[in-house]
Amino acid sequence: MNERSATQTAVSITQRWLQQNGSNLLHNYTQFLALPNHASDLPNIQRNADWLIEQFGQRGFAMQKLQIEGAPPIVYGEHLVAGATRTLCFYVHYDGQPVVPEEWAQDPFAATLYDATLEAGGKPISIPPAGEPINPEWRLYARAASDDKAPIMALLGAIDALQTANLPYTANIKLFFDGEEESGSPHIAQYLAAYAHLLDDITVWLLCDGAVYPTDDIAFKFGSRGVTGMQLTVYGATRALHSGHYGNWAPVPGQMLARLLTSMKAEDGTVLIDGFYDSTQPPSPFELAQIRQAPNIDGQLKQELGLAFTEGNGESLNERIMWPSLTIRGLASGAVGEKTSNVIPKTAVAELGFRLAKGNDPEQMLDLVEGHIRKEGWHIVYDEPDHETRLRYAKIVKVKRDPNGFPASKVAMDRPEIRSIIDGLKEFTNNQGVFLPSTGASNRIYGLIFNDLDKPGICVTMVNRDNNQHAANENVRLGNLWYGVELMSVLLTLVIARD
Amino acid sequence: MNERSATQTAVSITQRWLQQNGSNLLHNYTQFLALPNHASDLPNIQRNADWLIEQFGQRGFAMQKLQIEGAPPIVYGEHLVAGATRTLCFYVHYDGQPVVPEEWAQDPFAATLYDATLEAGGKPISIPPAGEPINPEWRLYARAASDDKAPIMALLGAIDALQTANLPYTANIKLFFDGEEESGSPHIAQYLAAYAHLLDDITVWLLCDGAVYPTDDIAFKFGSRGVTGMQLTVYGATRALHSGHYGNWAPVPGQMLARLLTSMKAEDGTVLIDGFYDSTQPPSPFELAQIRQAPNIDGQLKQELGLAFTEGNGESLNERIMWPSLTIRGLASGAVGEKTSNVIPKTAVAELGFRLAKGNDPEQMLDLVEGHIRKEGWHIVYDEPDHETRLRYAKIVKVKRDPNGFPASKVAMDRPEIRSIIDGLKEFTNNQGVFLPSTGASNRIYGLIFNDLDKPGICVTMVNRDNNQHAANENVRLGNLWYGVELMSVLLTLVIARD
Repeated sequence: MNERSATQTAVSITQRWLQQNGSNLLHNYTQFLALPNHASDLPNIQRNADWLIEQFGQRGFAMQKLQIEGAPPIVYGEHLVAGATRTLCFYVHYDGQPVVPEEWAQDPFAATLYDATLEAGGKPISIPPAGEPINPEWRLYARAASDDKAPIMALLGAIDALQTANLPYTANIKLFFDGEEESGSPHIAQYLAAYAHLLDDITVWLLCDGAVYPTDDIAFKFGSRGVTGMQLTVYGATRALHSGHYGNWAPVPGQMLARLLTSMKAEDGTVLIDGFYDSTQPPSPFELAQIRQAPNIDGQLKQELGLAFTEGNGESLNERIMWPSLTIRGLASGAVGEKTSNVIPKTAVAELGFRLAKGNDPEQMLDLVEGHIRKEGWHIVYDEPDHETRLRYAKIVKVKRDPNGFPASKVAMDRPEIRSIIDGLKEFTNNQGVFLPSTGASNRIYGLIFNDLDKPGICVTMVNRDNNQHAANENVRLGNLWYGVELMSVLLTLVIARD
Repeated sequence: MNERSATQTAVSITQRWLQQNGSNLLHNYTQFLALPNHASDLPNIQRNADWLIEQFGQRGFAMQKLQIEGAPPIVYGEHLVAGATRTLCFYVHYDGQPVVPEEWAQDPFAATLYDATLEAGGKPISIPPAGEPINPEWRLYARAASDDKAPIMALLGAIDALQTANLPYTANIKLFFDGEEESGSPHIAQYLAAYAHLLDDITVWLLCDGAVYPTDDIAFKFGSRGVTGMQLTVYGATRALHSGHYGNWAPVPGQMLARLLTSMKAEDGTVLIDGFYDSTQPPSPFELAQIRQAPNIDGQLKQELGLAFTEGNGESLNERIMWPSLTIRGLASGAVGEKTSNVIPKTAVAELGFRLAKGNDPEQMLDLVEGHIRKEGWHIVYDEPDHETRLRYAKIVKVKRDPNGFPASKVAMDRPEIRSIIDGLKEFTNNQGVFLPSTGASNRIYGLIFNDLDKPGICVTMVNRDNNQHAANENVRLGNLWYGVELMSVLLTLVIARD
């Protein structure tokens, strides 16, 4: 049996299994979704962990709770395959966002099936009896139905489907289920370090979270951008000045700040800070080819967002996020609107946000920004300037660097084991899958795994985009959940090349 | 008796009178200051008006209340001099700022004499018996003690001093006391129009309000700048965007706004908007000479305000306020500080403030700004842009023009009747007085008199700068009050040239 047919086999077995057992899967999922799962609610978090241990335990996984005192446990499991030389590990998070029940159409922990979205006038329906057809447009509403219990449920379905057909896994399987991702995973670094011995042999991590591509194609990503920031405060006089008595003579902090910000970026979006792009590792030819094969969503996004212009002279969003960005996430000086008054404010503040591409060091990038500011003739201070300093320098800016920045993390898509998985997934998706080197967002967990543990990983998305993630009336579209079950079957049975 | 000796005579008579009667003046002032005088407190405002009518009536003035229903009255008076061909009118306001009693060291309406400022540890003292020496450094604390009952009290003192010596006024004298200046004089235009017949024959208005020059020299000004404003709102996407998913592709409103603002002004402070300076009537050679004779306070101000740089390549503040200014009084986009987040905000807003010099029309100036914005490639809207507009134009800015702008008002200092008063005042001040064509601030009343009534006027200052005007513990330095009495004697006895 060659690799190609393994994928085809896994898909057809799973589709048949879903026809018979989709109803049971939904009933089982409803029980899982009944467990409130905010990370701060430790008793309920433990109930979720217990449920997971029971479910995967029943299916032949050796389960344990990894426990750091006071933190939600990591639910860890392993299923070893005789003779397997590779190990896949599924990262999913079982905690969810908090709920504001009065904003929901139903109890957020009483999962309810609807025959369409609420926005389209969907009505609650019963889960049909086993074997009855299930419409892929139906939605299951509940907190965490998409984010991020869906990949867990898909995995349980795939395990059952493969078991029914006696189809073996092609690699050892590990489970690493996070219980506090929506709270920023404050203990994950500690968990990864404390239990490194369980994770050493992992060949590839599968990081399962997030929604499909804007074209509704299933998407796989291989990294995330880093992030950092800098606050700039520009000084005028020691007090706000009457704009009549002093206007046309006193320096205007907002004007000075505008000039400094303008010096940093050309109108087309090119950052003008010396060296800003130099440390970036550009995408490889293979990666660039994947980016260019992905459907171009720029037109759709521009239409949706009301944009006639984008930075980068028409370069696509997917190409642009391979490079570091500088954005202004905040500006403040004096007051605007009703509260504005005829003063020259004493300061103007800008919050700069940076997203970092592979190769950019957060501290070095901020050093470059400081270098640029100095080149523009500014005197940099790190605390409130004293009077003597104010009298000495015409252009004073206080710099506050984000102490919590972190670099991008990216797995080379050309690596043999990654490439072999991509090939399998391309077959599965009939070449409709989207394979992008990086998401534009920043994910500390990717960094811990890709950079600190030095393990490759793939970010796997499956749920519908309109899932109301983080909001009221979260839901999963059943077509996406079913496709997720198939995807998991494929992943469990792929032949993975050697590193 | 020539003009020169008239001034000397008035001063010496007044000084002698103050030695004998300064104590009585303070007792009388204490009674005036005991009357609460916020414009909204109409019963007390009427008590102030009654007191004024009684006091000036006793001194031979024909007094009346000019009354518009529901508004504080104008206290109007006149003292006609047989054969006089000129008429001086004293504008003063008898209302005061509101008080927050708990912030005061005393009851704000129980005027209290201190032997020094509170800041210097001043202690309450009794008003000394008549004829006892009075220290010019003593302070009288009470609401409105400086702003603006002081010129009224100085005028009463001068009237008494001249009466003692039987020294006649050289012009008809009119009084026009405003009862709602601190509330923006909402009825003054109506009063001036309704009672124009009483004001037609006025040769020169003396607008008595405000503190002396920063060098503590008494200052006279002959106009004020106009004022207007414009709010700019720059648009990015229709919603705030995730700075990771969209950063380096989506337009950044703060960045776009910074570029627009930077295009408006050079680093040295020169406004780059075409025609911005063209309509300004520059100061005449005489006016420029007065400006240059005034002590240069730039060094002192820069030291006080912590400034190493000022706009205008070292040109003095007094010269700079002869020209229109553009300042940024407010900037806002997203959030700064604790509330900042990793978004690309959907808008950025700037509040532009303009001060206008003589000759600048507020609407035309804003037209020039709009012209500049268009020249920079922006599409201007006056309401929230619709989706179609957003999709059509790369750079969209919403302009909101200040509907309440008004032009500068300035009296030519070279006019003969003004020039003759200046000459007298220069003699009085031993050439230490400061004579400036305009204050940098904007005063609607000046405009009503100088522009609408087409009457010349002089802005007369006398009170100490540290008078805590508009704040708690307002006070007047007795040296300034005494000097004010002398000044009023001089003004009442000046020989004024023909227009």
